[in-house]
Amino acid sequence: MQSTSQGGSEPILFTRGVPAVEALPNQLISTCLQAVLEGPDGRSILQYGHNGGYLPLRRLLSEQYAVSADQLLVGNGSLHLQDLLSALLIKPGDVVLVEQPSYDRAIKTFRRRGAKVIGIPLEHDGVNLQALEKALAQQTPAFMYIVPDFQNPAGVTTSAAKRQALVDLAARHNFWLVEDIPYRTLRYKGESIPLLRDLDDRHTITVSSFSKLISPALRVGYLVAPVELVKKLTALAEDTTLAPVLPTQAAVVEFHKRGYFASNLESLKQLYAPRLQAIVQALKTYLPNVAFAEPEGGFFVSITLPEQNDYSDLLARAKQAGLILTDGRGFFADPLDGSKNHEHLGENFVRLPFCALTPEQIEEGVRRLAAVVA
Amino acid sequence: MQSTSQGGSEPILFTRGVPAVEALPNQLISTCLQAVLEGPDGRSILQYGHNGGYLPLRRLLSEQYAVSADQLLVGNGSLHLQDLLSALLIKPGDVVLVEQPSYDRAIKTFRRRGAKVIGIPLEHDGVNLQALEKALAQQTPAFMYIVPDFQNPAGVTTSAAKRQALVDLAARHNFWLVEDIPYRTLRYKGESIPLLRDLDDRHTITVSSFSKLISPALRVGYLVAPVELVKKLTALAEDTTLAPVLPTQAAVVEFHKRGYFASNLESLKQLYAPRLQAIVQALKTYLPNVAFAEPEGGFFVSITLPEQNDYSDLLARAKQAGLILTDGRGFFADPLDGSKNHEHLGENFVRLPFCALTPEQIEEGVRRLAAVVA
Repeated sequence: MQSTSQGGSEPILFTRGVPAVEALPNQLISTCLQAVLEGPDGRSILQYGHNGGYLPLRRLLSEQYAVSADQLLVGNGSLHLQDLLSALLIKPGDVVLVEQPSYDRAIKTFRRRGAKVIGIPLEHDGVNLQALEKALAQQTPAFMYIVPDFQNPAGVTTSAAKRQALVDLAARHNFWLVEDIPYRTLRYKGESIPLLRDLDDRHTITVSSFSKLISPALRVGYLVAPVELVKKLTALAEDTTLAPVLPTQAAVVEFHKRGYFASNLESLKQLYAPRLQAIVQALKTYLPNVAFAEPEGGFFVSITLPEQNDYSDLLARAKQAGLILTDGRGFFADPLDGSKNHEHLGENFVRLPFCALTPEQIEEGVRRLAAVVA
Repeated sequence: MQSTSQGGSEPILFTRGVPAVEALPNQLISTCLQAVLEGPDGRSILQYGHNGGYLPLRRLLSEQYAVSADQLLVGNGSLHLQDLLSALLIKPGDVVLVEQPSYDRAIKTFRRRGAKVIGIPLEHDGVNLQALEKALAQQTPAFMYIVPDFQNPAGVTTSAAKRQALVDLAARHNFWLVEDIPYRTLRYKGESIPLLRDLDDRHTITVSSFSKLISPALRVGYLVAPVELVKKLTALAEDTTLAPVLPTQAAVVEFHKRGYFASNLESLKQLYAPRLQAIVQALKTYLPNVAFAEPEGGFFVSITLPEQNDYSDLLARAKQAGLILTDGRGFFADPLDGSKNHEHLGENFVRLPFCALTPEQIEEGVRRLAAVVA
């Protein structure tokens, strides 16, 4: 087979944050779907359902979050729910605050729905609070979007102290905190930190999904929020997608009932933990002068290359070296301080999703990256 | 069990156009899901997929419609596709034309996306062409939405001559015709009439789904359109729902491969044809003076009660008589001629979905209706 890279081997993809394909539990899901489709509800889960989602799934989640089932909306993946949230909450002229950098598709969604999206610099323990207070002094946002655990893209976990500061600010300035926690249970070491909703549920909207924990193609995401907000979002969901995909939602319930969720989560951690270790080790070995937040879980490590170099053609040079990267600029929203050279934001930012690569691929990938940026 | 109606029996629901629950092929779908999840693609259909939809499904549909696979977009049910279409095509100040009456959720979707929705009176063989030409002389619409076969709600099938007139007008005035054909293959008698796309595919967007042909909860709808439009809609789909629900889409392919689609369609027709016959017979028996379009397929018959009576409390009176009806006003868009007493449009319009009721329930339901309106 002819090589497509200078290194004489297959290109290595540090692009999308996808699960390892070998970790997708196709046999278990097949078993669950068969059980629910051939069980007593087999026909009713093929009929039009209520767009709040499959009630047993909402009940299961409501127990996990200690809320009522009418505080739960199950949607077609968490991006779908973010889009619905944006449609409902963003009015013309509104600002949405995000961590800087943040999840590229979230930034894009908030912009498409009409918001000016402003990034608050993310430090190794969460956003810079002085910058956030400065932003809040200028304008109260429609909401602030946070990925508090193993952030996408930076891998940062917001500290307990900063979480408390965030809910205090949300209460004082009266805005919504949207906490997106798809990676939260994929913790490979250290101790879990309370959710924003655990600290103050009045201003918190929690969004998550089973994409990283069972399978992305099931498209089962959910949202926890106050009842009145869930009611409005449910009506909007019904207006746009009419009814839920009940069979996959029922399969998720069965996956829990049979104990597969717990065992699958354990398998995922055992598969991914060495991959995190491999990327941290490789970065320390091959890029010893580049500082980065060392994550304790999730899918991502990210690095910021030294600013003095010109990384405008980073992607092209990486590709030549057999390395496929995502354009770092997509993770950057508008800066609060307009003075910075705006269009170059993120040019030297590299997200490194590590879960879908073997430790060997990870080491080789970082080696190639070091050769490109050296 | 205590009765909830004057008639001393269970209420009869003439509300949503849903399949008969006994017609939902749970065993066959279970078999298909098991086959695809335990087959060679079992893991890849659990991964993030391309939002055009599962490629083998797009290929299967592209053969049916004699188009290329890149003219196909598979979405989360056809309302989802109508929402995407509306987001892309409707600009501020735009008009969308619909048949009067039309599908209530479509009207609502076009309005939510900012259109002024104008209804062109529907006759027993399709829209009134004089009224349509008058509307087109006033303003070229973003698109016209048509349900050409066994229309929802009226049961009308647009004649071949009017279909030709529609594509001619679309070509002359340069607007999109959106033909929504979820019921088309559920023809219980008579001969099929060419699609709008068969007459002229340049201005036609065809939307359909498997909700009525396999199961609504699979949420598999699709759209056929020119490549450039499909590209834009696919990008928008990716921005809003990120990835397709591949397992259900793969199950639909398997359902065809195994010959289940053909046999299931035959079973549906055998189940539904007597129900259509029952409702037509009951209407002729119990409401002999009310004219209606006699459908040759689909899910709906509708009647318009004599205008001289006051039907403002029709739903309430029907409920008392053990009959649950849908508010007819939802099926009516703005009239082209503003002179008509607008807010009363549809008050005397009754949609009667007949597929999910037994012939006995249908007869009893129409008997109750006749008692209410007599």
